[in-house]
Amino acid sequence: MLLVKDDILTDEGELAVKALHEENLHEFRRHYLEHHPYDQARLFILLSAKEREMLYQYLSPGEMAEIFENIEEEEHPYETYLAEMNPSFAADMFAEMYTDDAVDVLNELDKAQAASYLSLMNKKAASEIRELLHYEESTAGSIMTTEFITISAQQNVGAAMEILKAEAPDAETIYYIYVTDGDKKLAGVVSLRDLIISSDHTLISDIMNERVYSVSVADDQEDVARRMRDYNFLALPVVDFQQHILGIITVDDIVDVIDEEASEDYSRLAAVPDVDTADRGPFSAAKKRLPWLIILLFLGMLTASLIGRFEATLEQVAILAVFIPLIAGMAGNTGTQALAVAVRRIALGDTTEEKKSKILLKEAGTGLITGTICGIVVTITVFIWHGQIFLGLLVGISIFATLTVATVAGAFIPLLMHKFNIDPAVASGPFITTINDIISVLIYFGMATMFMQYLL
Amino acid sequence: MLLVKDDILTDEGELAVKALHEENLHEFRRHYLEHHPYDQARLFILLSAKEREMLYQYLSPGEMAEIFENIEEEEHPYETYLAEMNPSFAADMFAEMYTDDAVDVLNELDKAQAASYLSLMNKKAASEIRELLHYEESTAGSIMTTEFITISAQQNVGAAMEILKAEAPDAETIYYIYVTDGDKKLAGVVSLRDLIISSDHTLISDIMNERVYSVSVADDQEDVARRMRDYNFLALPVVDFQQHILGIITVDDIVDVIDEEASEDYSRLAAVPDVDTADRGPFSAAKKRLPWLIILLFLGMLTASLIGRFEATLEQVAILAVFIPLIAGMAGNTGTQALAVAVRRIALGDTTEEKKSKILLKEAGTGLITGTICGIVVTITVFIWHGQIFLGLLVGISIFATLTVATVAGAFIPLLMHKFNIDPAVASGPFITTINDIISVLIYFGMATMFMQYLL
Repeated sequence: MLLVKDDILTDEGELAVKALHEENLHEFRRHYLEHHPYDQARLFILLSAKEREMLYQYLSPGEMAEIFENIEEEEHPYETYLAEMNPSFAADMFAEMYTDDAVDVLNELDKAQAASYLSLMNKKAASEIRELLHYEESTAGSIMTTEFITISAQQNVGAAMEILKAEAPDAETIYYIYVTDGDKKLAGVVSLRDLIISSDHTLISDIMNERVYSVSVADDQEDVARRMRDYNFLALPVVDFQQHILGIITVDDIVDVIDEEASEDYSRLAAVPDVDTADRGPFSAAKKRLPWLIILLFLGMLTASLIGRFEATLEQVAILAVFIPLIAGMAGNTGTQALAVAVRRIALGDTTEEKKSKILLKEAGTGLITGTICGIVVTITVFIWHGQIFLGLLVGISIFATLTVATVAGAFIPLLMHKFNIDPAVASGPFITTINDIISVLIYFGMATMFMQYLL
Repeated sequence: MLLVKDDILTDEGELAVKALHEENLHEFRRHYLEHHPYDQARLFILLSAKEREMLYQYLSPGEMAEIFENIEEEEHPYETYLAEMNPSFAADMFAEMYTDDAVDVLNELDKAQAASYLSLMNKKAASEIRELLHYEESTAGSIMTTEFITISAQQNVGAAMEILKAEAPDAETIYYIYVTDGDKKLAGVVSLRDLIISSDHTLISDIMNERVYSVSVADDQEDVARRMRDYNFLALPVVDFQQHILGIITVDDIVDVIDEEASEDYSRLAAVPDVDTADRGPFSAAKKRLPWLIILLFLGMLTASLIGRFEATLEQVAILAVFIPLIAGMAGNTGTQALAVAVRRIALGDTTEEKKSKILLKEAGTGLITGTICGIVVTITVFIWHGQIFLGLLVGISIFATLTVATVAGAFIPLLMHKFNIDPAVASGPFITTINDIISVLIYFGMATMFMQYLL
């Protein structure tokens, strides 16, 4: 369903492209630039290389910057476009971009190339970008931008409005103005809403909020996102360890972070490297998924070799084999459920020892209950089906034991990994499922061997 | 890691609680109200019923409204608190809340109770809320709020600023002002940024943006969220079918929607009803997970009965049973990977027939490649391990065929469901895994029976 008239990709887009072909600069700019930069970017990526080269001639670096801010690297590699541009045009474009966006693009290039663009830029822009390039990925520093507005507490509202008017075209947000003291330390915040409802002569110190929320430059972007969502801020200042303001993070960056982190959790659960990165074809998809599959394959071999130890049992009672996928499958299912809940609780910050024990206890209880009920259902079904009460009991009790253990394992493994700071990416659904295959096979055949006399 | 001083739950919170105990209204308000409403809510939910009853005496309905807007129903049921309040205090509180938040709370109550609060409210607030209560869940109408600011195109910037100053305390956002024509139809938008940099005498019609993006009241909230993320809007107007503006959706609501939808996708993948709803205990968790587990149990029985048909084969070659979990497990793993990618592509809007075919083709290719490689690895491993080339070939070729089919099935099933508008919740990881168990067992035993002579 289209939410707005999607004319950039139909009529008006065609007019813009036609103007390009006719080398009609004026008409092109008229039909192209009136659109939102996001729509401009959508048309841009559909152009041919030849059309794009015309376009670079017809747009300023600042106009191109807005387009570039709306292109996703995953779908359309930046390098292709950059290679087509005159290097100094590209450098000017980077200088015009919001620093956080420029940094995102430069981070995707190889170091030499990024350095050469920086050397072509004016010194101020280059040094601002260079500073942001130093911050580690996924930290507040890596997503902040330096286009923010500061004011001193001794100024009045009228002066603040003048500063706003002057800086509005460049600042990423004008809705919060940060108040700094003599040492450039963050001392308060005034919202544009506060400024608007105050008279020109009011001192900033009288209306500013001294309880200003900030994040540290080294904080994890996910923590920043959570904080911003909880408090409904439109922007948050980023400070260093001495409370100097270094940048701001705006809500649109946070929307991207939340999206990104969610798709990361999702991908992990399915053991796919990243569902949001469009694979260019089956080879690239296969290449990404194979490492996991090969590991799981060898874990599966381990399960097979465990069952191999019970070959004698199997030879005596072949019917036992019939229930292997049922038991292993149910172990995998409950394990995945418990895993999903535990991983999510960790992501939501339930990471104290006390809360972790609570998660485990709750999963143990859940496993006991689901195990008991599924066990009874299975016992009855197998008894009705095969008419053997001992076979029913064996399968039923195995389901009971397996579900209990598998549920606890599903929660325990990610919690343990979190404790030892191991990347929980390893605790994917398929991994837990395979581990639980092993557990379930051991329980099932262990019990079958023990009670063999009743089955024969 | 704490991002801000968390004093509401330590020193200052204690002071506020102490003031409550001492019945010191002034001290309580001083220590409590200076905090952000989100923090006020965090302390509120920690209070005892007796403390809360004091608090209702000490706060105005408007102050209580801000706290209530920051309480999550999932963790703390609204009804408990509402039952403690004087009904007319509660009604006043609802009237003071942003309409979208009031609607969220009232939607959780039973109809009679909601109606009785509405009857206690002033007519205007009640009718605004009543209108929003009609919209279906998950539509733009259900998350919009009615506190927006409109202006006519013939007014000038100075007049607009006056309107802003007057409405700022109530409006949910003052950063966009919507321009309406004589018929109250949406005709344009002006941002506060535009107003600030224009002189007082400029006509709104000269600075307004006529290309205003809007969403329809019946649009799905997920589409609205995607649009808002792509275009980086702070708010979007919601219109009816004649383009009359009915409300606005602000970015903070969208952040919640993105979070909610992501956790929904995640929960579905793991076949848990909702990972974000904290279960009050193992019984409530078990109750939610059991329906799925029982369905999967009977699907597992189907797999078992299919293997049962090959009992004769199994009795002759017991070693075949050894590889059941390996083959079924690998089918589940690749199926889950393909499922995750397909579901995500659907969520991202790749739903044209052409794009769907492309997804299927790509998954088929991926399945062929991963199947070939895993098949070769398995053949060699089993041969080395058991010294039987035919057994190795049987397991290897089964893995090859299973992985190919399972990968396609993992993508095909959600795409098919989407085509027939069936809730893709059914296409969970465990479901696909169980379906793929069946497929893999059929392939494996079918081949084993066919080539029995080589295995004996």
